[in-house]
Amino acid sequence: MIYQPGLHIIAELAVTNVSLLNSHENAKHCINQLINKHQLVNLGEVYHNFSPAGFTAVICLSESHISLHSWPEHKRLHLDVYLSNFLRDNNLTTQQIFNELVSFFSAEIMQQQTLKR
Amino acid sequence: MIYQPGLHIIAELAVTNVSLLNSHENAKHCINQLINKHQLVNLGEVYHNFSPAGFTAVICLSESHISLHSWPEHKRLHLDVYLSNFLRDNNLTTQQIFNELVSFFSAEIMQQQTLKR
Repeated sequence: MIYQPGLHIIAELAVTNVSLLNSHENAKHCINQLINKHQLVNLGEVYHNFSPAGFTAVICLSESHISLHSWPEHKRLHLDVYLSNFLRDNNLTTQQIFNELVSFFSAEIMQQQTLKR
Repeated sequence: MIYQPGLHIIAELAVTNVSLLNSHENAKHCINQLINKHQLVNLGEVYHNFSPAGFTAVICLSESHISLHSWPEHKRLHLDVYLSNFLRDNNLTTQQIFNELVSFFSAEIMQQQTLKR
């Protein structure tokens, strides 16, 4: 098996619609749709709402992981999308999922780093 | 609440003791000890062994997450340790946990990036 790195996009997003950051329900629905659309394999997930507001989530994929940590009091979301290329080249998919999540949150990208690893 | 970024260490490790990469049991035990030792809060976790070998794991913490993706056929481990500073300054803890995992795996650090986010 070729050892080809995956793509890991790491970003801080500004989100003005705070209701999307207060709890995970809408984001979870979006992510489940993206996982199905891009034919990824969800091995398990943790979604947790904080009190009084905010959520954290990690989704374990056979292709690596997606994580979201929201800071509604600062209108920020920290997002990671990391897909390895173990069975197929997922670099385009990584970028597409990131773009679709930015669009879902109507977010402005404050910081973004893209690592090949 | 002050918006102070967390520390995210992202690394590729070379591990010669492949048995530690083949399945997650030993790593899980080590991580549980580290979570207790450093008084982090585990909100949920996913550990998955692949067939015939290799594992992937994400641990969702109230402080953010830890992830491990092993490539035993290439003697590599992709490790993330990311702790936010929401309730306290965890920067030192992030570095300590990373160091302790490198030590557990007797690993050589092939690539490392440290992001403030």
